[in-house]
Amino acid sequence: MEDKAKIQEAIKVQGEVVRKLKSEKANKEQIDEEVAKLLELKARLGGDDGKHQFVLKTAKGTRDYNPKQMAIREKVFNTIINCFKRHGAETIDTPVFELKETLTGKYGEDSKLIYDLKDQGGELLSLRYDLTVPFARYLAMNKITNIKRYHIAKVYRRDNPAMTRGRYREFYQCDFDIAGQYDAMIPDAECLRIVHEILSELDLGDFRIKVNDRRILDGMFAVCGVPDDKFRTICSTVDKLDKMPWEDVKKEMVNEKGLSEEAAEQIGEYVSMQGGKTLAERLLQDHKISQSKQACAGLSDIKLLFSYLELFHITDKVVFDLSLARGLDYYTGVIYEALLTQAGVAQISTEAQNGATSEENVSVGSVAGGGRYDGLVGMFDPKGRKVPCVGVSIGIERIFSIMEQKAEAEVMYKKNPKLLSQLQHCEESGIPLVAILGEQELKDGVVKLRVVATREEADIARDHLIGEIRRRTSEA
Amino acid sequence: MEDKAKIQEAIKVQGEVVRKLKSEKANKEQIDEEVAKLLELKARLGGDDGKHQFVLKTAKGTRDYNPKQMAIREKVFNTIINCFKRHGAETIDTPVFELKETLTGKYGEDSKLIYDLKDQGGELLSLRYDLTVPFARYLAMNKITNIKRYHIAKVYRRDNPAMTRGRYREFYQCDFDIAGQYDAMIPDAECLRIVHEILSELDLGDFRIKVNDRRILDGMFAVCGVPDDKFRTICSTVDKLDKMPWEDVKKEMVNEKGLSEEAAEQIGEYVSMQGGKTLAERLLQDHKISQSKQACAGLSDIKLLFSYLELFHITDKVVFDLSLARGLDYYTGVIYEALLTQAGVAQISTEAQNGATSEENVSVGSVAGGGRYDGLVGMFDPKGRKVPCVGVSIGIERIFSIMEQKAEAEVMYKKNPKLLSQLQHCEESGIPLVAILGEQELKDGVVKLRVVATREEADIARDHLIGEIRRRTSEA
Repeated sequence: MEDKAKIQEAIKVQGEVVRKLKSEKANKEQIDEEVAKLLELKARLGGDDGKHQFVLKTAKGTRDYNPKQMAIREKVFNTIINCFKRHGAETIDTPVFELKETLTGKYGEDSKLIYDLKDQGGELLSLRYDLTVPFARYLAMNKITNIKRYHIAKVYRRDNPAMTRGRYREFYQCDFDIAGQYDAMIPDAECLRIVHEILSELDLGDFRIKVNDRRILDGMFAVCGVPDDKFRTICSTVDKLDKMPWEDVKKEMVNEKGLSEEAAEQIGEYVSMQGGKTLAERLLQDHKISQSKQACAGLSDIKLLFSYLELFHITDKVVFDLSLARGLDYYTGVIYEALLTQAGVAQISTEAQNGATSEENVSVGSVAGGGRYDGLVGMFDPKGRKVPCVGVSIGIERIFSIMEQKAEAEVMYKKNPKLLSQLQHCEESGIPLVAILGEQELKDGVVKLRVVATREEADIARDHLIGEIRRRTSEA
Repeated sequence: MEDKAKIQEAIKVQGEVVRKLKSEKANKEQIDEEVAKLLELKARLGGDDGKHQFVLKTAKGTRDYNPKQMAIREKVFNTIINCFKRHGAETIDTPVFELKETLTGKYGEDSKLIYDLKDQGGELLSLRYDLTVPFARYLAMNKITNIKRYHIAKVYRRDNPAMTRGRYREFYQCDFDIAGQYDAMIPDAECLRIVHEILSELDLGDFRIKVNDRRILDGMFAVCGVPDDKFRTICSTVDKLDKMPWEDVKKEMVNEKGLSEEAAEQIGEYVSMQGGKTLAERLLQDHKISQSKQACAGLSDIKLLFSYLELFHITDKVVFDLSLARGLDYYTGVIYEALLTQAGVAQISTEAQNGATSEENVSVGSVAGGGRYDGLVGMFDPKGRKVPCVGVSIGIERIFSIMEQKAEAEVMYKKNPKLLSQLQHCEESGIPLVAILGEQELKDGVVKLRVVATREEADIARDHLIGEIRRRTSEA
């Protein structure tokens, strides 16, 4: 009975919270969350309150798409699919779940994020974590040794969602892969060309594509004195360089992974290097790294890759960056990642410079990634026959978010725009800041900047506006 | 050690089975299955055989789509989506899993077929079982009271798969629904019109759309003396009438569900009735059934529905059929189901006449179904507010199978067709029978009928061919 009283008290308090938020017209998501808590409490009381005590929501980290969002999704897909088809790709589809063992041993430390299905008798199943492993399984199962395919479908990761930034537990991947024996670096260059075409066509602002090679990383680790059995784990740590400053990465290497101070320092020197074909040439002459056959193979391929990229006229967007590592275990050669670099995601570069450590602000800039995985199909083939593969995955959710924001802006071109409905709209769609430029502001030479969540407003001199927005968004 | 020896013996035997099947060029699926067993046995031995002992397959009841199948899928989707859009529908998407409780209490006896996710901490989740319940949840959650939407996505049922007949555990549904207050029977008639348009455009051969009304069924049960609390379970039994002869259905009612012999007999009379508007008018005068207000409401609506169908020029394909029940709990008014009636699925009618009981042969004929569900959204609304809804689901997997078979046939229009490759093709695509008409057969006035699985051949007189094919396919 005491318990019941406690719950009733909690319901009262929670009811107040909800009422307050509603009266303040707080963010819809926030209200929903508090209402959910209230309903959960009521459900714990049980009995009298009727049948409608369950929580009316989608699963954590997932969302519905409304018709407007679907229209944007369709438009983005069409652009991407047209590009894939132009490059001669066919499409396949695979089931949303795979035998659990099909996914085992493919994702390294990230395996813990796989969704398993309940054992209801029969096979043990897991939701697909990406489209690459099912693709490799498909190739091995059907003994296909040559195909150019794309696959657009949802994948599932029990990760920490950050939905306002486009990170979900259920999200689309948009993959293009080339399987088969080709002349070196030709399919790899085509993948980069495709990223370039798609990001240009979608008109998302400026972007940069980082490339590196797993063999260069491994060779570098070897000549820096990393023991063989620590390559993968050190690689995972290097992969955090876009989220953590070097000092923290180094600390992890030395304190957690047991690397010598000296080895870490040497790695630090290499991973700070960025450039193009010339950097690859210079490293091929580097007295130290050139001692590794592996690294040399990687560097020669990077050199060759850049010569193709020159022919494709895309070298202006591509950087050879030795800090790029990419987390997944299955990559064996060239790896790459595309980032948006313009306003809206400008905080990324700012933070990298400041050495800020918030993962969320940084990872949202990445909109495509991929690489070569020559061993994966062999892991499925009963005789271990390998099929060389290279591919790229377009981070479509982030692109949706950007396009949605753009589309919303377009919707608001109205003859008689109403401030209130626009502000409400910002609240609903999670836009953090509003710049208001009315008659008074025009007269005063200022812009009113409003924080959507807290409703604070401040007049900002026009000259300081960009700096102020930057400061506030990089804080978030 | 003894165990190990036993497994090794089993591996030897199973190896023989596989070799035999391969040498016989047996059906690919069959070989795969036996190879899977072999690999499982080897995996049980463990250790020495290397790392590749897992079974290379998709989860039970699921399949990959290859590029050719994807092309067909795209074509079918386009036809359907164009029709939906023509009728003014928008599209939405929902997550593949829902909170488990969202699905609870919506599917009656079929709930056992829901896939649950493993409890890995956090919320309890289940894969969606259809698109209707998530749609209702979406409406309630977003307080939408008026929308015409379509949704094409995969749903999941732990049912007995019958893959050669297009029944999978993962399959597409293709739903069109109208939510909101309208004049009676107008949206219902539009749903039937949509089914008619889609099945006509896809050119799948002749079809029939059965309609009935849950209120007519309930009223009929009431006047026949079925106790109130047995309506749903008796309804489930009536639903089996397209799979079981009346005698068996009656037996289930009397012996399993405890209905009186007399009540069952009366139900039997009603459910044998088929007709159109006139039947509805006649039943409105029926001294018995007209005693039920519910039944009268349903009959008046059916009458009104048919007057709209006349305006839509589709009454030639629509039958008012009192035996149509449909399994799902949530229907509250008009229900309907479309069946293909032509060759290829001809065994359906034959069997129904013969009183055969194989569910598989029968259910494949159904290619669309739906009805009115005015109470479902209210189950999700915290205040129980109702939103009247009516919708239809197109059974796309069955349509894919038919289109695929058609496409394959087209591929085979060759200048120099080779018998061997055609037979191989039949094996691969699961075609059960081949009719061979060569020079010799022409001369003899016969057709050689070959059973693909067993490779048995028999000459059949041309006059007997259709009957023979019917006999053999209805046996399967």
